[in-house]
Amino acid sequence: MNLANQCIEFMHSSMYRHLWSNAPKECLEYGDYSFYQHFQRSIPSFLPREMIRDYIVGRACASDVQKYVCFNSVVRHVEFVADQKHFTLRFHNLVTGKNKSENFDYVIVAVGHFSVPNVPSFDGIDSFPGRILHSHDFRDARQFTNQNILVVGGALSAEDIALQTYKFGAKSITISYRTKPFGYGWPPEIEELPLLTHIDGRTVHFKDGSKRTIDSIILCTGYKHHFPFLTEDLQLHTENCLYPDQLFKGIFLQRQPRLAYLGMQKFYYSLPFFDAQAWYLRDVILGRISLPEEEDRASDIRLWRERGKQLSGPSEGIDFQVDYARQLLDVTDYPKVDLLAAAAMFKLGRVHKQENILEFRDKLFTSPFTGTPSVANPICWIDAKDDRIL
Amino acid sequence: MNLANQCIEFMHSSMYRHLWSNAPKECLEYGDYSFYQHFQRSIPSFLPREMIRDYIVGRACASDVQKYVCFNSVVRHVEFVADQKHFTLRFHNLVTGKNKSENFDYVIVAVGHFSVPNVPSFDGIDSFPGRILHSHDFRDARQFTNQNILVVGGALSAEDIALQTYKFGAKSITISYRTKPFGYGWPPEIEELPLLTHIDGRTVHFKDGSKRTIDSIILCTGYKHHFPFLTEDLQLHTENCLYPDQLFKGIFLQRQPRLAYLGMQKFYYSLPFFDAQAWYLRDVILGRISLPEEEDRASDIRLWRERGKQLSGPSEGIDFQVDYARQLLDVTDYPKVDLLAAAAMFKLGRVHKQENILEFRDKLFTSPFTGTPSVANPICWIDAKDDRIL
Repeated sequence: MNLANQCIEFMHSSMYRHLWSNAPKECLEYGDYSFYQHFQRSIPSFLPREMIRDYIVGRACASDVQKYVCFNSVVRHVEFVADQKHFTLRFHNLVTGKNKSENFDYVIVAVGHFSVPNVPSFDGIDSFPGRILHSHDFRDARQFTNQNILVVGGALSAEDIALQTYKFGAKSITISYRTKPFGYGWPPEIEELPLLTHIDGRTVHFKDGSKRTIDSIILCTGYKHHFPFLTEDLQLHTENCLYPDQLFKGIFLQRQPRLAYLGMQKFYYSLPFFDAQAWYLRDVILGRISLPEEEDRASDIRLWRERGKQLSGPSEGIDFQVDYARQLLDVTDYPKVDLLAAAAMFKLGRVHKQENILEFRDKLFTSPFTGTPSVANPICWIDAKDDRIL
Repeated sequence: MNLANQCIEFMHSSMYRHLWSNAPKECLEYGDYSFYQHFQRSIPSFLPREMIRDYIVGRACASDVQKYVCFNSVVRHVEFVADQKHFTLRFHNLVTGKNKSENFDYVIVAVGHFSVPNVPSFDGIDSFPGRILHSHDFRDARQFTNQNILVVGGALSAEDIALQTYKFGAKSITISYRTKPFGYGWPPEIEELPLLTHIDGRTVHFKDGSKRTIDSIILCTGYKHHFPFLTEDLQLHTENCLYPDQLFKGIFLQRQPRLAYLGMQKFYYSLPFFDAQAWYLRDVILGRISLPEEEDRASDIRLWRERGKQLSGPSEGIDFQVDYARQLLDVTDYPKVDLLAAAAMFKLGRVHKQENILEFRDKLFTSPFTGTPSVANPICWIDAKDDRIL
């Protein structure tokens, strides 16, 4: 919640105070704008969100792209007008309070998919007297100091919020998983239990018969793809996966390819991965790349999804995503990026987590792009309790 | 947040656990459905929200009105189609996921105006490490046990949330007011200070130079009228007041009287007040009452608003609202209700608060409608820590 924003549009990103990147920055370096170019010095591999933001904004400023962005405007409705072969967008200007309509030949949906909480229900949760929140509403770990916390979930949010609350002095953290535990060498304050079965007052019961007294429940149970501003025929329906159905090259909506989705995958890569999609998409719009016929697009989607189903584990997922990005990058003029090096660093980062979950963010990597080695943080991640630029 | 609801529509009412009515039930009795008729026994005057809900639902069931309600359908867009002289509504069915459009001759907006928070900003609030929430997100006072709470605001939300957190064991409650303090005989754990000026870490500074160390900040700073689903020309713009501008008889939008607003006032009365508006509105739609010409409607609005501006204090506000309701009721067939008796009870309730803010909800009133006297709660409000039906 941006408390200073007097415009009525209540939303906040799912990021929270003290959030740091969970992959080395060397994996998410833009091909046309290096970290060294931006910061003009060597910096650590793992960065607080403020520095990542600074880097992203810095690149946007360098290209002066902001002058094309219509800020403070909420798109309320998008429909395809078939007989006129264009999209009509209705949007609301938060500053003037006015609504406006405008027509476009292409629409690119790049709103992200980590905002709308997926909220499961459990027996007795309605009468739990403590605080219940989804990770989307987790804003600051210091709100949970001295508490007994239940973290529900088995993915990255659960992992990081367990670490955050530990770092800022929660009394105990119980992670409840559905499929399998992380299995890290957690500190004694963090434990993993199978899924909860029911809640009775402050007492939470788990599948293995154990029970814990809990002050706050944090549901790290993921997000939903949600596009209420699009007419139904334009909406992508997918779970969080490496290759959503109905998207040719992971971008173009099969039944209406002039509607494109960017970054709707589950991703290991982030910034350069979005670039790969954006460059490809741009070239399609400019006519440099032509889209195949509907049937051929369908076969291509099918092939990728079949391969996606064979994957066993994150390591193969990383390779899959490298191959996916490569086919996009190979046909555009995006600066050459070393995808294999990035994949190797992702995998190494995962090994570091297994070795020591409290220290993996203190490890150092070298940019395959500029050859710049990173430098150690002045203090270790576990002791760095500040959001500021390092 | 209804955790059991798997439909994607994130909203919760601004009510919270352990909420009780803050006026005697005898002031909010329906003219055609008494509390005695519903509960078949004498009950206390002040009730937990569950009982009020039970009463409201009971009346709805008695008239079988639900069969006309289209549940789980979110209205996304309403516009007036001038050349066809009807409204077109677009709505989204949360169960099927489908969008639908339908045309209507009249539209009645009765969505309430206590949902969209008015959020002020204060120097340093962005780096306050504790929890900050608006009263809209206050769900259960037990989340604040043993904490030092800052309640910002000087109206009913501030009053009740201060009492709630006190009742459920907050260590201290500081109420910060902009205009004037409540001045009740608060228990020693509750104090009133003028408006905060700035926040430094956990330390909150106030206009009179005092400062307090605070764990959580609850902004009881009111709500905004907000109708994003209406085209701009149909939106009512008003602060929370007894007689919003541009509404003839407090109901019909001046520039488009086939759009009606119900319950958009600041109200002392609630249920029978809404009925008065609904009966009048129904009779206009049925042609039993004809609306005057635009100019005459404007004069009528002006007269009421001018009288509204002369009011000094809640007691005169209550009388104003009685007169307003009376003119609506006098021309419809709504069962006779004793508005003067209700006004007297409202005023007496205010006196009780001044006498003892912890005990005013234990007072007993008699229904002017059925003559049924209320009976004492089995336990006093301050000790009743349960939501259940009394």
